[in-house]
Amino acid sequence: MSEKLTKTALTPATHTTPPAQFSHGVRKGGLLQVAGQVGFGPAEPGQAPRPVGPGLREQTLQTFANVESILREGGASWEDVVMIRVYLTDTAHFAEFNEIYDEYFADLTEAPAARTTVYVGLPAGLLVEADALAVLG
Amino acid sequence: MSEKLTKTALTPATHTTPPAQFSHGVRKGGLLQVAGQVGFGPAEPGQAPRPVGPGLREQTLQTFANVESILREGGASWEDVVMIRVYLTDTAHFAEFNEIYDEYFADLTEAPAARTTVYVGLPAGLLVEADALAVLG
Amino acid sequence: MSEKLTKTALTPATHTTPPAQFSHGVRKGGLLQVAGQVGFGPAEPGQAPRPVGPGLREQTLQTFANVESILREGGASWEDVVMIRVYLTDTAHFAEFNEIYDEYFADLTEAPAARTTVYVGLPAGLLVEADALAVLG
Repeated sequence: MSEKLTKTALTPATHTTPPAQFSHGVRKGGLLQVAGQVGFGPAEPGQAPRPVGPGLREQTLQTFANVESILREGGASWEDVVMIRVYLTDTAHFAEFNEIYDEYFADLTEAPAARTTVYVGLPAGLLVEADALAVLG
Repeated sequence: MSEKLTKTALTPATHTTPPAQFSHGVRKGGLLQVAGQVGFGPAEPGQAPRPVGPGLREQTLQTFANVESILREGGASWEDVVMIRVYLTDTAHFAEFNEIYDEYFADLTEAPAARTTVYVGLPAGLLVEADALAVLG
Repeated sequence: MSEKLTKTALTPATHTTPPAQFSHGVRKGGLLQVAGQVGFGPAEPGQAPRPVGPGLREQTLQTFANVESILREGGASWEDVVMIRVYLTDTAHFAEFNEIYDEYFADLTEAPAARTTVYVGLPAGLLVEADALAVLG
């Protein structure tokens, strides 16, 4: 118990280097925190990240895929997630978002995570952002 | 220590089934996360949730009552909460909100939680949302 | 293991009493949560807190200094932080914010924290807010 816990940055191969001194996710002890993810497609060398398709569905599915890559990189899965924060940009997207979300998580065997959904501003072209907190073990 | 932690969904009797694949709160190990709560009155069978009274006071007190139901369902109380996130929709509500908040938490014996308060968009008719993270033990 | 964990409020000398029943930060067990911090200069007796200089740079550096005071008060440092939430008020501030952020965290030896950055409303005069979650040990 007296051993020092290590903080590990999680950088899946699908992700570009963050544009600033932060990590896509970190794990320390039994906690895994995924940074805010958006609908950027898989990293391509020498190219700036770009959101997939203009629609909410494509961006949401890509956002969840990006969260999942980081969870896996840290040895976790959606089953371990206790909180998802969802940031939408338009209240009119709520019903469609929930539909996509329900489909995506239909096969979860553990209890689904708690969630907060709020409407905020995001950089141009981005419709959805999500971050997640997981407890491992 | 090698036993697998269980993730438990917290669904108080006062709450309706969430409109999507998420929980009102979850507990895993020593962490209890309450999902974003709003001022919906107690669940009535077959009816969609409705916010109580139009005013900030009623909605705030109901929001806190809803957070508390989930904390209790998971074996925790406000005393265990380490973080409250408050989402308001109007900066003009800040002073009144703080007054209500102070009254509500006047009898806390442990240190009050840390708090972040920001102004975001919420679905029509909702003035306040709050979520909370508790550490048990 | 059966001993009850204590929740400790963190109140650095640089900080004024919060305007409501919340703490600048709390520690309980291995978690330290820093409340939303803004660019208020060091507390002066009998005076309401005021943001430093009108610019993003001054406010951001002061915000980070305020987060750090609370981390230290609880026996932690930036190296222990697993998540930083940044709230900006203008998407046009993103590039400059990241520059300041990168300079500030250039000497971090452990992996940088995960981060979520969103655009929200803040009280008049405030351009940036940040909160942080640290895991100690």
